Amino acid sequence: MFTIRSQSHDYKVEEYSSLRSALESFSDRKNAFFLIDGVVLRNYEAAFDGIVPAETCIVTEASEEQKSFERLTPIFLELLERGLKRDGTLVVIGGGVLQDIGCFIATVLFRGVRWELIPTTLLAQADSCIGSKSSINIGSYKNQIGTFFPPYRVLLVDDVLKSLPWDEVRSGLGEVIKLQLIEGESGFNELMNDLERVTPEGGWEVISKWVKRSMAIKKPYIEEDEKDRGIRNILNYGHTFGHAYESATKYAIPHGIAVLLGILTATYLSVRLGLVPSSHYQDLKQRLHPWCTPYGEMLLKADQEAIFKAIRHDKKNTGDAVNCILTKGAGHMEKMKVDFLGDLVPAVEEFIFREVP
Amino acid sequence: MFTIRSQSHDYKVEEYSSLRSALESFSDRKNAFFLIDGVVLRNYEAAFDGIVPAETCIVTEASEEQKSFERLTPIFLELLERGLKRDGTLVVIGGGVLQDIGCFIATVLFRGVRWELIPTTLLAQADSCIGSKSSINIGSYKNQIGTFFPPYRVLLVDDVLKSLPWDEVRSGLGEVIKLQLIEGESGFNELMNDLERVTPEGGWEVISKWVKRSMAIKKPYIEEDEKDRGIRNILNYGHTFGHAYESATKYAIPHGIAVLLGILTATYLSVRLGLVPSSHYQDLKQRLHPWCTPYGEMLLKADQEAIFKAIRHDKKNTGDAVNCILTKGAGHMEKMKVDFLGDLVPAVEEFIFREVP
Repeated sequence: MFTIRSQSHDYKVEEYSSLRSALESFSDRKNAFFLIDGVVLRNYEAAFDGIVPAETCIVTEASEEQKSFERLTPIFLELLERGLKRDGTLVVIGGGVLQDIGCFIATVLFRGVRWELIPTTLLAQADSCIGSKSSINIGSYKNQIGTFFPPYRVLLVDDVLKSLPWDEVRSGLGEVIKLQLIEGESGFNELMNDLERVTPEGGWEVISKWVKRSMAIKKPYIEEDEKDRGIRNILNYGHTFGHAYESATKYAIPHGIAVLLGILTATYLSVRLGLVPSSHYQDLKQRLHPWCTPYGEMLLKADQEAIFKAIRHDKKNTGDAVNCILTKGAGHMEKMKVDFLGDLVPAVEEFIFREVP
Repeated sequence: MFTIRSQSHDYKVEEYSSLRSALESFSDRKNAFFLIDGVVLRNYEAAFDGIVPAETCIVTEASEEQKSFERLTPIFLELLERGLKRDGTLVVIGGGVLQDIGCFIATVLFRGVRWELIPTTLLAQADSCIGSKSSINIGSYKNQIGTFFPPYRVLLVDDVLKSLPWDEVRSGLGEVIKLQLIEGESGFNELMNDLERVTPEGGWEVISKWVKRSMAIKKPYIEEDEKDRGIRNILNYGHTFGHAYESATKYAIPHGIAVLLGILTATYLSVRLGLVPSSHYQDLKQRLHPWCTPYGEMLLKADQEAIFKAIRHDKKNTGDAVNCILTKGAGHMEKMKVDFLGDLVPAVEEFIFREVP
C-alpha cells in the first residue's frame, strides 16, 4: 500500500481483508513470537487456529496499568525463556496499549528487535500505528517514558473493526476528526457528512476510507519530524487538555473522546485569546457533541486541581511556559505559549463549568 | 578534542585537567541534574562544592543489581519529581554501571533527553564512553535489555584515574589491551612495553596516552557500525567467554580481567581450530598473566555448567549457532560460527583445567 520513511528504518503499511490472511503472512517466519491482546484472541480465535503455534503466543490484557516496568518484566522474561533471539520477530496484535508495550519491548530487548504490528482498534489503525512512538507510565507519571521505534511492517486488517464496542469506535473517530480539522475545512466537512450515517447499529463500512485518509494526513508530519520537536507538535491539537481530562478522571474517558473534549477546550481558549471567531467554536461544539456525549459531564465531577496539575506537567511543557496547540480555524493550528494563571486556568474553568456538552 | 559520528547525533569528546574544571562547564546550564556514583562524590567532594547545587544531585551506588527496572524506578521518579524537563540535561558521573543506568534513563525518559558523561574509571574512559550502548539486566538475564543513545558530550578528566583501586586499573587495561590486539602487532608491543612500568605503586601517568589511543581504534568501528550488526562485532573479541566467566563467578572477576581471560580462551580455541600457531597463544599467555592473575583460578572453582549455559545464551548468538570472535594473530580477528559441543566445549574445558594462569 504505502511506505513510511523513518530515521530508524522505512516501513510498509499493507492491507489485508481478514486477520487470518494477515497471520498467514508470518507462516514461513522463523523465531517469531506473538504478543496478543486477550480480547482479540477471544474474539478471533479461529483466525489463529493452525497458523500460529500456541507456544509462540503471549497473551496479555490491555490496560493502562500494564504499561509499567513492573508489568512488562514478566513479558520480557517469557520472551527470553521461550527463546526469542536477536534475529527473531515480535508480532504485536492489539490496540494502543499493546502497541505501547510491544514497541517498548522491541526497542530495548537486545537493543532493538524486529517487530511488526497488526493494529486492531480504530484508534490504532487510524492514528497510532504510524509515527514510531511508545509510551510507558511510571508511578503517577503517565507516558513520560517511551521510545521512537516504528514496526518493520504494519498490517491493516479491515474485519477486526467490526467487533469493536461503540465507545471504541467513537474514541478512534476522535483522532480521525482531529486529523481532518488539522487538514482543513473541506475534508472535515466531508467526514462529518459521512459520519451522519455511522451509528451504534451500523454504517461503519465508511470508516475504513477514513482510516486511510487519516494516515495520509499524518504521514508527512511524522516523516518530516519523527522525533516530535517541531511541526509534528501540531498533531497534539486537543491533547494537552485531553490527557489532563483522562488522568483526572482515572481514564474513565476513552482517549479519543478526551481528545475531542480537548479540541473544544483549545478552541474555546483560542476564542478567548482572540485567535478565532466565537462562531467557529459554536459550530464545532454542535458538530462534535454526539461524539463526546455524555463524557463531558465527567469533567464537572473530576478533581479540578488534578486537571490543572496534569496540564502543567504535560511533557510537552519545557521550562515554566505552558505550550498549547491553538487554532485560527480548521487547517490553521499553531503552537503557542499561554500564560498559565492569567489565560489558561480561567478559560478551562469556564469551559468545564459552562460549556461541556 | 574530537567528534564521534552517530546515527542519533554527533558528539564531542573533550579533555579536562580536573573534575572541577569539567563541572564548571555546566555552571550556566539550566535544568541540569547530576547522576553521580557515590564513590566518586565521596572521593572528590571538594570538586562539586559551590558549583553543583545539592538539590540537583542524585547519588547512587554502582552495582550490577542497580541495572534493573526495579532499581531504576526510584531514579526516574526522583528526576521527574525534582523537575527535570524535556529540554534539560542529565549529567552522568561514574563508571560503566553509571553509564548504563544514565544512558538507559536518558534514552527512554521523555523518549530521549540530552545527557552528558564524565567517565570516572579507566574502563569507561578508554572503552565504554564512546559507542552509544547501554545495558540493563532482567531476572537472571544480563545485559539483554538496552539502547543505543550516545551522550551529547563526553568529558574526559585525567585526575579521576588517580584514586582508582589497582584491580579497576587492571580491568580497564583489559579493554585497552584488547583494542591494541585488534589493531595489530606494533601497537600491542608498544603498549606492553609501556605497561612494564605500571605497578600498583605508580607509573600510571602513561595510561592517559593509552586512553586516547584506545578511543582512536574504537572510533571507526562504532562510526561505521554503531548498531553492532557487522564489523563492530570484532570489538567483542574475548567477550563471549569473558561474559560467561563473569556471570558464572557472580561478577567476582572484574569485567576487563574477565575479557583478558576470554581473549586467552578465544586464542586457545583458535589454536585448536588451526587458525593460529600455538606460539601466538603461548606468547599472549605469558604477557597477559600479570594482568589477570589470580582471577584465572576462580574459573576452576566456578560452576562449569553455568559457564557453558552463559556462552550458549550470549545475546550475540542467533538461532542455534555459537558465534565467536576468533584470531589468526594480532590484527586479524574474525567472527566465525563454532560447533558448540564438538569444538567449543572441549577447548574451553581444557583451557580452564590446564591453562588458566
